[in-house]
Amino acid sequence: MNTSEFRRRGKEMVDYMANYLEGVESRLVYPDVEPGYLRPLIPSSAPEEPETFEDIIGDIERIIMPGVTHWQSPYFFAYFPTASSYPAMLADMLCGAIGCIGFSWAASPACTELETVMLDWLGKMLRLPDTFLAGDASAGGGVIQGSASEATLVALLAARTKVTQRLQAAFPELTQAAIMEKLVAYSSDQAHSSVERAGLIGGVKLKPIPSDDHFSMRGSALREALERDKAAGLIPFFVVATLGTTNCCSYDKLLEVGPICNEENMWLHIDAAYAGSAFICPEFRHLLDGVEFADSFNFNPHKWLLVNFDCSAMWVKKRTDLIGAFKLDPVYLKHSHQDSGLITDYRHWQIPLGRRFRSLKLWFVFRMYGVKGLQAHIRKHVQLAHEFEALVLQDRRFEICVEVTLGLVCFRLKGSNQLNEMLLKRINSARKIHLVPCYLRDKFVLRFAICSREVASAHVQRAWQHIQELAGEVLRLESHT
Amino acid sequence: MNTSEFRRRGKEMVDYMANYLEGVESRLVYPDVEPGYLRPLIPSSAPEEPETFEDIIGDIERIIMPGVTHWQSPYFFAYFPTASSYPAMLADMLCGAIGCIGFSWAASPACTELETVMLDWLGKMLRLPDTFLAGDASAGGGVIQGSASEATLVALLAARTKVTQRLQAAFPELTQAAIMEKLVAYSSDQAHSSVERAGLIGGVKLKPIPSDDHFSMRGSALREALERDKAAGLIPFFVVATLGTTNCCSYDKLLEVGPICNEENMWLHIDAAYAGSAFICPEFRHLLDGVEFADSFNFNPHKWLLVNFDCSAMWVKKRTDLIGAFKLDPVYLKHSHQDSGLITDYRHWQIPLGRRFRSLKLWFVFRMYGVKGLQAHIRKHVQLAHEFEALVLQDRRFEICVEVTLGLVCFRLKGSNQLNEMLLKRINSARKIHLVPCYLRDKFVLRFAICSREVASAHVQRAWQHIQELAGEVLRLESHT
Repeated sequence: MNTSEFRRRGKEMVDYMANYLEGVESRLVYPDVEPGYLRPLIPSSAPEEPETFEDIIGDIERIIMPGVTHWQSPYFFAYFPTASSYPAMLADMLCGAIGCIGFSWAASPACTELETVMLDWLGKMLRLPDTFLAGDASAGGGVIQGSASEATLVALLAARTKVTQRLQAAFPELTQAAIMEKLVAYSSDQAHSSVERAGLIGGVKLKPIPSDDHFSMRGSALREALERDKAAGLIPFFVVATLGTTNCCSYDKLLEVGPICNEENMWLHIDAAYAGSAFICPEFRHLLDGVEFADSFNFNPHKWLLVNFDCSAMWVKKRTDLIGAFKLDPVYLKHSHQDSGLITDYRHWQIPLGRRFRSLKLWFVFRMYGVKGLQAHIRKHVQLAHEFEALVLQDRRFEICVEVTLGLVCFRLKGSNQLNEMLLKRINSARKIHLVPCYLRDKFVLRFAICSREVASAHVQRAWQHIQELAGEVLRLESHT
Repeated sequence: MNTSEFRRRGKEMVDYMANYLEGVESRLVYPDVEPGYLRPLIPSSAPEEPETFEDIIGDIERIIMPGVTHWQSPYFFAYFPTASSYPAMLADMLCGAIGCIGFSWAASPACTELETVMLDWLGKMLRLPDTFLAGDASAGGGVIQGSASEATLVALLAARTKVTQRLQAAFPELTQAAIMEKLVAYSSDQAHSSVERAGLIGGVKLKPIPSDDHFSMRGSALREALERDKAAGLIPFFVVATLGTTNCCSYDKLLEVGPICNEENMWLHIDAAYAGSAFICPEFRHLLDGVEFADSFNFNPHKWLLVNFDCSAMWVKKRTDLIGAFKLDPVYLKHSHQDSGLITDYRHWQIPLGRRFRSLKLWFVFRMYGVKGLQAHIRKHVQLAHEFEALVLQDRRFEICVEVTLGLVCFRLKGSNQLNEMLLKRINSARKIHLVPCYLRDKFVLRFAICSREVASAHVQRAWQHIQELAGEVLRLESHT
């Protein structure tokens, strides 16, 4: 395909994208295919000779779309939102054309510098303490990771290196393995599975702290665990506090947990993957109080801030902590400015070496929405969640399981888990809307997450009506057995 | 921005992309900016009110482009190529619009299934042994990672889990830490820095094996190291063999190293990040001989196979080895098919949870180029490298440092390292072409990598002329001091 054909096909693709997003509401949100559906539809090996663009674009509707779960549909209420906006898509197109790999400052100075400044913009929007911003001469700064999982892992590895170096300085006879055997990290029993996974990868113990009745990790429970572990000769070194848990959007008590981490010299990482976007609204900023105690903070603009995946924003108070954990400098990556102290080589801040020019997405989105536009987006979602909550509360067959603070409503039929499992199965088999469940303690609960950029009151109302109908069926069935 | 504006702006962006790539040759390949250039050019915080698309598109040339290293310029000969093609860009646009996060089969069946089949297509193009393909009922299969660094790390972690489980089954009293302390992994002293980094992250020793005169890891050297380590009570468990090293595109001897790994029950991972793409050409396939001994194999279509970053292809012989290392199953990610054995949940195969619909890029590229088109791309680059090699050999002031097999030429002025460092500095300061160096043993060497999709003989000729002129200046200066 030469450039002049790309001009034509690119414009056709723009129309396809626009048509898809305009019409996504009328597609089945959850696909009606069985495992293995795709393989018989396409050849068993790649073609020797080139095919035409028409061949391929035709196959998208025939082969791909029947198997797509439509995350951008206004009837998608599963997991958490994954962001999508036109400014972000335009920026991503530009990123593809530039095609640079910004692992060091020299590999593309604009790629590194725009990222640093955009993370400062975003940090100011969240009113993060200045120590997290790169500013002109700060020790902190931000970086775009691919996902919150990677941010947690990077934080854990940095903390592991830091405590190991500290202990080896004091007790030079200690081996790394002897130290790692005694290291222990903590998170709430409500933390995301990626936290446990970071512990597995990093080869350290990660212990769940029992959350309280509001599914929050409290200082007292953390204190209890770490005193027990210290008494047993273990070395507590790392705590992940979650703001906006995946199960039910609960919040660990930063103002209790933070001071303990500081006193005990434990690295505090905050995972606000979903909820973080809301903190740009003054009325929700109080949920972030206590961030000043943290060593690192992360949330996903690719969830709720209209920046298409992937874009996970992470800040640290001391960038030397990250760099110290990873820095290796082969000659083919050296450049003349790197020892000047003026530049940032982001490859030392992350797991992979290569990186896209992702800050373009932040730049386009921040400028084309403005802070007010982004706040309006958050507020619309929160308002719709409260609208759904109000509908649930009007129906005595149902209960709300956790206080609704942002865009997630946890609800269930009053009754057995089995009843609720039946209801969920019926919902997802009907494929008109899509939800996923969670367990809160031993209760099977339905999660209704406001997701799509275009979701409106009418969609929420229709979804609720549909749930009510299916609930009626399930309850009738139950009363007959 | 509403959909109708996106239709208009998207088409303008397509033209901007096409113009950029058509005109990239006339831009300075290496930017003339100092660290910190960007911050003063933009506001210190995000705008409250939305700005227009015109504001932003105008700023791209004013703020971004002066700081871009133009990886797609035909005068870019640094690092290794990073792939760029119109079919891949079109696919990536579609991926952005669909905006699904394919962490499990149910999260978007098409996303998972197309990936599995595309990795089978690609495996067949490379003539990988069937055991690496997913096929219908195989134990192996492929996955798209973000980067070769992640693939190496994932392989190391899987190997670490496997050996730990094996040892704990035999000696239940052994703790994980006691085992990890004794684990040792190996790679050539020419391996990429990401291999050493994987060892750091995984908390295990990684020892460099001295390469031979052709910069290859030999069986004998590996054998010597592992016998020494075994005698010292260590547990060798993991070997990374590189095909196409970053320094000089040398090849570890798979046919020697492979059998040793199999005998010693060590996981063999092959990193062919750059060179792997060439193995789709029958005349280069012999370089992959011995892959049958490997447990995992990885290369980057985003380097040399016209698939835009990121797309790193990884295959394993036993997918249960990967899944065993990472599997955690929270309720919110469970779905009805997952225990059927029929489906793949790629989240267990990788470090992050979320993942883009990257297989669309492979599908578009394979179909729009055909295997023959891709082979032609590889062959053109190899031919241009030999053309450059011939030019160097005609100039007695220069020497070729390593046999040229694919698209990389390692060369230098006969003389001191200092002389060559001066030459490189002059080249990169002139900014007409861009190169990076490496050390081969104690020699400072210039790397000339054929990179751009559009690079042609004329660019190589001009680059060489330019290098000759600058070499003349450097030599004159030297003779006057």
